[in-house]
Formats: sequence, C-alpha cells, structure tokens
Amino acid sequence: MRYFFYPNSVAIFGSFREGAIAREILRNIVEGGFEGKIIPVNPKGGEVEVAGKKFNIKEKLDEPVDVSIIAIPAKLVPELIRGLKGLTKGAVVISAGFSEVGNVELEKELIKAAKEAGIRVIGPNCAGIFGVHAKFYGSFEVRVNPGGLALISQSGAFGGAALAMGNEEGIGFSAFVSYGNAADLDESDFLRFFADDENTRVIGLYIEGVKDGRKFLDALRYAASKKPVIILKAGKSRAGARAAASHTGSLAGSYEIYRAAFRQAGAIEVEEMEELFDAAKAFEMYERAGRRVAIITNSGGPGVLATDKLERLGLEIAKLTEETVEELRSFLPPQCSVKNPVDLIADADYERYKRAIEVVCRDENVDAILVICVPPIFIPSEEIARAVVEANCDKPIIVNFMAGELVREGIKILESKKIKNFPTPERAAKALYWLSLRSSSE
Amino acid sequence: MRYFFYPNSVAIFGSFREGAIAREILRNIVEGGFEGKIIPVNPKGGEVEVAGKKFNIKEKLDEPVDVSIIAIPAKLVPELIRGLKGLTKGAVVISAGFSEVGNVELEKELIKAAKEAGIRVIGPNCAGIFGVHAKFYGSFEVRVNPGGLALISQSGAFGGAALAMGNEEGIGFSAFVSYGNAADLDESDFLRFFADDENTRVIGLYIEGVKDGRKFLDALRYAASKKPVIILKAGKSRAGARAAASHTGSLAGSYEIYRAAFRQAGAIEVEEMEELFDAAKAFEMYERAGRRVAIITNSGGPGVLATDKLERLGLEIAKLTEETVEELRSFLPPQCSVKNPVDLIADADYERYKRAIEVVCRDENVDAILVICVPPIFIPSEEIARAVVEANCDKPIIVNFMAGELVREGIKILESKKIKNFPTPERAAKALYWLSLRSSSE
Repeated sequence: MRYFFYPNSVAIFGSFREGAIAREILRNIVEGGFEGKIIPVNPKGGEVEVAGKKFNIKEKLDEPVDVSIIAIPAKLVPELIRGLKGLTKGAVVISAGFSEVGNVELEKELIKAAKEAGIRVIGPNCAGIFGVHAKFYGSFEVRVNPGGLALISQSGAFGGAALAMGNEEGIGFSAFVSYGNAADLDESDFLRFFADDENTRVIGLYIEGVKDGRKFLDALRYAASKKPVIILKAGKSRAGARAAASHTGSLAGSYEIYRAAFRQAGAIEVEEMEELFDAAKAFEMYERAGRRVAIITNSGGPGVLATDKLERLGLEIAKLTEETVEELRSFLPPQCSVKNPVDLIADADYERYKRAIEVVCRDENVDAILVICVPPIFIPSEEIARAVVEANCDKPIIVNFMAGELVREGIKILESKKIKNFPTPERAAKALYWLSLRSSSE
Repeated sequence: MRYFFYPNSVAIFGSFREGAIAREILRNIVEGGFEGKIIPVNPKGGEVEVAGKKFNIKEKLDEPVDVSIIAIPAKLVPELIRGLKGLTKGAVVISAGFSEVGNVELEKELIKAAKEAGIRVIGPNCAGIFGVHAKFYGSFEVRVNPGGLALISQSGAFGGAALAMGNEEGIGFSAFVSYGNAADLDESDFLRFFADDENTRVIGLYIEGVKDGRKFLDALRYAASKKPVIILKAGKSRAGARAAASHTGSLAGSYEIYRAAFRQAGAIEVEEMEELFDAAKAFEMYERAGRRVAIITNSGGPGVLATDKLERLGLEIAKLTEETVEELRSFLPPQCSVKNPVDLIADADYERYKRAIEVVCRDENVDAILVICVPPIFIPSEEIARAVVEANCDKPIIVNFMAGELVREGIKILESKKIKNFPTPERAAKALYWLSLRSSSE
C-alpha cells in the first residue's frame, strides 16, 4: 500500500476546466511540491496550466504510474479501471454516485474490474489522500504541515474540516486518507499500514461504522500495540446512529459494542472533535506520560482549574519531595507557593520558570509537568516560552499559554520547537490524561 | 455603584515611570477613549505622556472625582484613603500586600479608613475594572469590544486571560471587575449591580470561594432572576480546594454545597474555562432556547457529531412535520436528506441554505436551529454566511462554521451581524444546551 502514500508517479483523470475537481487536485499536487511524475488525463486532450506549470493532457494513460486519481462520472469508472490494467497499482476514486446513493451494482462492477486488473482501490465517493512526507497531496482538501498524525476519515467533509482545524492547532500530519465507501481498502487496512509507517507517530480515526468487525478489531489491536490510535466514533446516540445510517449508509451498530472493542484493543476513544486534536497534539509530542503531574504557573486561578480537571480525570497532583520544596524555596520569592501547584506569581521571568521546571523535573515523584502562563505584565511571553524550550528536562511537558494575542509570540517560539500549546488549563490537563492512558496500558 | 462603571472623572495614584502599573492604567484609559476627566496623581508631580497625550501629574488630588485608582505601596494606602474623604466616591485598590500575604491588620485599617471617609472600595490586590460602554478601562488588562458580558473575577490573572480569550472568541463585554480580596465590595454586590445594568445581557462569574454564603445566595438568586448568570467555580476537587486556599486564601468549602446553591438560585454552572465563553457567547445572542433542535448541514459527519452531542446533553432532535419535509423535498436535490439533520450536501449554496433555514424555522416542532458549514468546495464560505444572516427566522440560530482559514471570511460576515461562531459541532450543540437551561427554568 506504500505506493499510495509515497508514490513516484501519479495520473489524474477528469475534467481540467477551471473549478473542476480534477484540476483542483492537480493544482494541489503541483503546489504541494510533488517531485514525481504528474500526468493529467482526459479523452479530449489539450493543455492545462496550474500554479504556473503547463501540462499536456494525455488522451489516454500510456505509461505505468503508482497511483491514479479518478474524478470522472461514476458510470464510466469501471471501464476506465479495466483499461488501467498494468498501468496503475492503486486507484483513488473520488467520483460519487455508487452505493452511497443506492447504486450498489455499479460499485460491485467497479470492484470486480479492479480485482481483475490487479488494482487496489480507495473510495469510491472519497475526498482523496495525502502522503505528506512525500509531498503528495492527492486531494482537493487544504494542504497541511508535515508531522506525525495519520488521519483516517470515513467522512470526506469531516476529514477536510479536520485538516483545516489541524492547521489552526499547529498539528503536523504524516498522511490523510478519506476512504469513502470502502469498497476495497478500508479502515482496517489503513490502520495496519500506518502502524508500520515510519513517519506516523499517532493515528487518528473518524468512523461512523465498520463493515467487518473482526477484521477491524484485529487491525486495531495491531495498530494500538505499535502506536497510539485515537478514535472519534460518530453515531453514538440513537438519533446519531440514524443520522449516520442516512449519511454513509453504514450501520452504526450498537455503540456499546464499539466502545468495548476500542478499549479491548487498547485504542483511545475521544468524545468530541476537539479532543481528537488535543489527543493528537499530545501524542505527536510524547508517546506517553505517567499519572503524577506537577503544575507550574504564574497565576493561581488557572493552576486551580488545572488541578480540578486533573483530579476529575483521575490523575494525581504529585506530592513534591522535601528536597524539591526546599530547593524551590531557596530561590523563589516568599510569596510564591512551593507546593504543587507551584505558583511563581505574576512577575515570574525566564530564570524563575526555567529553574522551577528543572527542579521539579528532577523530582522522583513527578512524571509529567503542566506549565501554565497567563500573559506576563512586565515581560514579553517569549521569555517564558524560551524558558520552557531551554529548560533541561526529560519528562513530558504540556504547555498552556493563554490567551490570545497577548501570548502569540510566545506560542510561536514554542511551536518552532515542536511544543504545541493548549489554550486552556483544562484542555492541557486532559492532554496529560490521554498520555497517561498509553502509559497504564503497558 | 454606578460611578465605578460609568464614571465622569477618574484619578490615578501611583508611579508614572515607564512600565509602572499606574502608567499602564493611565495609558489604557486614554487609549480606550475615556471622555471624562483624567487626573494622574503622585507627590513628586511632574509630567507624563501616554498615547500622544500629555498630563500634568498633580502632587495631590484637589478636586472631587468619581473613581480613584490606587497603585501605590500597600502600607501607604490607608492614609491616602483618609485623605480622599470628600474627594472620591469609589476607590479601586490595585496594590497588593494585604490579607493575601497575611497582612490582615493593614487590610482592616484600609477598610476602617474607607468607611470613615465614606468611600467604597474594590480590592485590594485586584487587577482593576472596566466600564466598557463608558469607554472606561480602569485596569492594565487588555481592552475588549463592547457587548453584553459582565465578567466578575475573583482572580485578576484569570480575568486578564479571560478578557484576551474573549477577544479571540468574538465576545463583547459590558464590564469587567477583578475584586481581589473583596475587603469591602464583593461578588454579591457586583451580581446585584449587573443584574440591573442596562448594558449587561449575561453575567460571568469566576470564583474560588465566597465569605458570606447567605448574602451570595440572595444576590445570585436576584441576578439569575433577571438574566443568565454563568459560574465557573475553581477549587472543586480536594486538591483544587487546597490550591485555592493557598491562592486567594479563601476557604473553597464543600463543592457540593456550592453546587446546590448555584442550582437553587437558577445560575448556570460550567465545568471549564472554555465553557464559560461558549455559554457567554450563546447568551450574548439569545436569552434562551427551547429543547427541540433542528440541524442543517452541508456535510453528514459533523451533523452526526452534533446529533450525538445534543442527545447526550438531553436535548431533542426535533421531528420535522410532514409539511416541512415535503417543502424541503420540493426544492432540494434528491441526494439531500430532508430528515433532521437536514443534509444539504457538499454543493449547497446561498439559496439552498437560506430556504432550508426558513422552512425549518417555520416548523412548529422546532425551537432552535444548529447550522453547520464545512468549507464549501465550489463557493466561498461568505455565501453561506450571508444565507444565515439574511434568512428570515425568528428562532435562535447557533452556527458552527469550520474550519480555520477556509471559513475565516464567512465568520467575519457572521460576526459583523453579531452572530458568533462555535468552532466544532459539539461546542455549538452545547451552546444550545446552555440556552435550554434558561428556558426550562422559567
């Protein structure tokens, strides 16, 4: 399946008129910097120019490629696939109009043609795929930054929105696949592939339902044994399941069964879209973290909110050793609290943060650190960001800089060092919770 | 208390050197456009220039003002207050170094002096106040947009971060008050004041603990009878309560007692900082909403996620009347789902959204509408935003445009019409939940 996400060559089938899907995909591939061969194909031939690059449109594909992306009318797809025998390893069928609108026969014909031609199929009715580290953006969706998240989405539109939100949240992606009707390759195949993909640190999965429960559970167990798998299951409620059925046509099935399967396989289920990102952010940075958390803050209130949330999630507010307390006391002003949460108070600067992080990090009772920073009054937030980045600490640090414009520059410094910011104390606390789940499962 | 938030004149006491607190407050007041009299005071006299405006620093206040903002060393505050008899109605004491660090006697002296001088006090150890509709920014915190939220915060730093986050979230404020040690005026006084303030549509309250439970409960009941009161209580967990005690010195007390009191009074308790904003956003737009929700979306997946969340929160997925279903069917393409969630599918445009909203809005089974929009592929998101803005509908509409840059222009159009966007389907669904709480309490 590697040729899908690390192709050397790609053919795109469809209309290349302004605004047409195939043209948008071509544009994305070119603008994304794909270094392999790119071949637009349309029986009418002609030329197309995207992103300042001119292409001859071939009337027919006449040389082998790794991947064919197909965005032509549904009823023509099976015949095209038959003609691609020996010319393509994998086909990504963007075209809609198959089983999702009741055309089950057409989808069967498509799969039969692909089997006979020895071609593996993603889709139909999908939004395409990204192989981010190969700079291959085989989709009309917004491009993303390279990183560790492989996002597998049953819903193309959810996937597209998720990519855009991922950009906002500073997430890096290794891959994206919208698998649509899953007529051939399905979520289980992708789980197995990304489990072994060297660029993928965490797998995110959006599903409404799966067809083959046994295959899914096996694949999920395999993937979760290799790296964190985060699942957002839609169609959990009765009304939601009905809505899902009318959307992807997939039987959402009993949520309780899914839930048990996720847990059994060691996957991490999130409740909401926002949590999918927060968990992905955490796991892009760290594989896991223990349950005993120390909080370091320049403001009491947010420290209390983080404490509340951590305790509600069943994590521990680490009890600092006497040694740590004494060392903190030795250099912190007397108004500071040297108990956990450690409150460095409003005028905390680079030195105070850095030293506090290092001292707390050495404490054997501490597994992970939550660093909170409200906009400092007397210094720019960049100083605190630098303290976090430069502190000598080998334990997971989750950061909550708030808020808004006032800490924008600080957050930039963090992100330049691959430290992702969580916008509220509670979301930062929950990030540590996701990390702890991986820890206790071992 | 009106003179605090709608003053005609203000004196500021402190150092006006570069970077000093009093200077920052003076700058904020000037830049904020305050139209009343502004008098900087420091025994050393001299001049100060902020935001291109020059002021003579008076050595002593020699004319009456509505509000005095005091940022001088703690030990000098009582004497200053004594000297302000007849010269100021209210004093905002920014200075720290009172009961929060154990100087209980100094705080008592301050209050005694204020009582004898007939001056009401906010603080000490506070971050100041905003009267946004009077363009009065009597604090060093970031300025905000005028609107309907009065934010009352026990923690100054929490308040400051919240203001900045509010700006990010597009929230409008009527007022802000950080009340610090609450030596004189406290949360209960502010609750009562904002309950009757004509510019305040919703009150947000961050507390760790209150001193006078009876007074608080009475004030809360009064305020909640007038308008929505949203409370974020910090120090809910055991560890959180301990942290709060070492922060504001307030006894957090049993959370269960608080919780019961909030409910009894008809206030709305939120669990997290983010929820405080989401609830405030919802109530800035609408007073309440019924429990029967219709979802209109251009993408199935997010519609399912919203459905899940609504059902989990105990709201109803409205059953559309046959009339509505028929009318939707009459103009929507056959692939669209005309059941709730109504799926307008990916190529939905202005006309489809507008008409669907209007038809669904007329349905007697529908109390409120959740409009979802993932980045449309063929048209700019502005078109969908315009459809939402221009649709003829008198029921509450909560909007979830996602995501990121792709819908930025659409969100701007919404915001220009005071429609606030919720970034995920689940947060939009929860906004409807907050609104429904107000509805059932009547």
